[in-house]
Amino acid sequence: MKVIIPTKTLTETLGHVERVIPSRSSNPGLSLLKVEIDDGRLTFSGSNMDIDVRSVVETDVTGRAEVALPAAVFTQVARALPADTVELDIGDAEVEVRSGSFATRLQLVTAESAPLLDFVDELPGEVDGSLLARALEHVRYAAAVADYQAVFRGVKCELRDGHLRVVATDGFRLASYHVDVTTGIDAEFIIPARSVDELIKTLVPGPARLALDGGQLTVASGGTTLNLKRMDGTFPDYQRVIPQAFPVNVTLAPQRLADAVARVAVMADKSANHRVDLFIKDGVLRITAEGSFGRAQEAIDVLQEGTEDEIALAYNAKYLSDAVGPVVGDLQLRFSGTTSPSVLRDLGDPAYLAMVVPLRTG
Amino acid sequence: MKVIIPTKTLTETLGHVERVIPSRSSNPGLSLLKVEIDDGRLTFSGSNMDIDVRSVVETDVTGRAEVALPAAVFTQVARALPADTVELDIGDAEVEVRSGSFATRLQLVTAESAPLLDFVDELPGEVDGSLLARALEHVRYAAAVADYQAVFRGVKCELRDGHLRVVATDGFRLASYHVDVTTGIDAEFIIPARSVDELIKTLVPGPARLALDGGQLTVASGGTTLNLKRMDGTFPDYQRVIPQAFPVNVTLAPQRLADAVARVAVMADKSANHRVDLFIKDGVLRITAEGSFGRAQEAIDVLQEGTEDEIALAYNAKYLSDAVGPVVGDLQLRFSGTTSPSVLRDLGDPAYLAMVVPLRTG
Repeated sequence: MKVIIPTKTLTETLGHVERVIPSRSSNPGLSLLKVEIDDGRLTFSGSNMDIDVRSVVETDVTGRAEVALPAAVFTQVARALPADTVELDIGDAEVEVRSGSFATRLQLVTAESAPLLDFVDELPGEVDGSLLARALEHVRYAAAVADYQAVFRGVKCELRDGHLRVVATDGFRLASYHVDVTTGIDAEFIIPARSVDELIKTLVPGPARLALDGGQLTVASGGTTLNLKRMDGTFPDYQRVIPQAFPVNVTLAPQRLADAVARVAVMADKSANHRVDLFIKDGVLRITAEGSFGRAQEAIDVLQEGTEDEIALAYNAKYLSDAVGPVVGDLQLRFSGTTSPSVLRDLGDPAYLAMVVPLRTG
Repeated sequence: MKVIIPTKTLTETLGHVERVIPSRSSNPGLSLLKVEIDDGRLTFSGSNMDIDVRSVVETDVTGRAEVALPAAVFTQVARALPADTVELDIGDAEVEVRSGSFATRLQLVTAESAPLLDFVDELPGEVDGSLLARALEHVRYAAAVADYQAVFRGVKCELRDGHLRVVATDGFRLASYHVDVTTGIDAEFIIPARSVDELIKTLVPGPARLALDGGQLTVASGGTTLNLKRMDGTFPDYQRVIPQAFPVNVTLAPQRLADAVARVAVMADKSANHRVDLFIKDGVLRITAEGSFGRAQEAIDVLQEGTEDEIALAYNAKYLSDAVGPVVGDLQLRFSGTTSPSVLRDLGDPAYLAMVVPLRTG
């Protein structure tokens, strides 16, 4: 059975699937790519247990075929093809790949050797792909890395009538993105942060369709569909800890703060939480750090509102930089006190809220 | 003592020195950067035992100072400076670094804590920096990595009246670059390939001055001087093994061969020397590979000279690609036989010669 498609289409489609499929696995079936032809649709699929992925190319071939082969080798071949089009000639034991003067014959295994995957047909929900990607990109950083309680390594998704909110926290900082939009899905669930990374890469502009089926979220965007396994566990009641009253606010350009923190933090001790100290008084934000190599400081003029007494706080420099990262408009730092959480808002995008807990000083 | 210099000058000058100085070492003195001021010259220096490096900035400061500090921290500070100029205020125990609204105080140690380095004043030899860099870049790849006999991990430099030749080989392939140029130095020596990498990065266009003093080669290019420790040992008598008669030659575009080898080699077995087979007949070069995943082939039209019988050879795909890498003009492959070394020449640059030993077939 012969299929002729543009080489670019093949590599782009394979790209979505190949990122998910592990290049080696103790379960050899997991490293396989399943290739199906059914009435003109050429489908590639695979899984890494946490994520199932399927990507579809429309062609004009007729008939049916279902085979599997090692994903990594096929992708490597596809990336190196010399001509603009590629012909796949799928036989029983081999697939021949021809492009320009190049030809290769890859050995096939039966489709049953690949994981059995189930993609739902009905996707009742819908959201703009770019909007969902932007929301997730704003909060992903705040999820914990390994060694934390499991739910801290996930992103909480709240799809309620009238709003979409995603939240991540590791207990020391939090990021939230809230937009008023109706998705047709009414549920709350937690998706592993690593699966969120894949979802962000897969989402394309235009409507993304959603389904929630037992233990998994299904998202279809462009020609690609992902099944994302949900995490068990209870997400912390984060709204309780976000402060509401702020005796002092300062406003400044986000890049100015990020650059200054990066410079000063060179002197901060890695073994002491990368501590940087902030002092605010008379419209000047002074940032200092001190460690075994010496000390550094930088002063920034800011727009200050609220009390005029000097306030002093300390933060983990990395947490502060991460929180500033997604801010595009003017940055507002809101201080609730020297030991209670500080809040960062993007005056150019009210959907984003970040919270950082100050380090204990003294 | 205060020095004001452009930030760009500081980072560029430090860059040359910082690449050499190890960021951590069991000998803590080795990770130090020595800073000297002497009659307007600001000098940075350091060493990794194989290479000593010194880089100089001309300033208008008077007086003398000699201190040391951790190279990695100072470089990190310099890279992050916010303004176009930087002021270094060197005291006894601290150096204050000021740039725009940023300031840092770094702790100093005595200059005696840093390695004692000796840079010769007389550099009798001279060669164009770009030419020396080009020569070394052409042959560097052929030096062996670890586990080989020591001299195979070096680059042989022959500076004889009227010519400069550099050669590297690991016993399975060889690269040589030969130019007719008088350097004022008459000697042969071997430099570790890793030191050659540093030398290539340091060389700038314009005259580079050379000195050979006992166990080391000294090269001064731009404001930077390197002492490169020579390797002991006897380099193999390579000229004996370069074949002189070639029953078949083929000529083709180097990129065409490199791309085809890369594509076909995806199928080659890593455990079998990445073997690719070449077949030449009737002006067509056919490249094939076969492994556990399947087989691949590609055919290239070439200009064939010599015998018309088909000849067949096998190579390590990586060795073939490496040898083609530096070729800019048309590529000539010269076959001396199916088991004796093949030679690659660049018809656009006769200074370059590469040799690859075929794999045993059958």
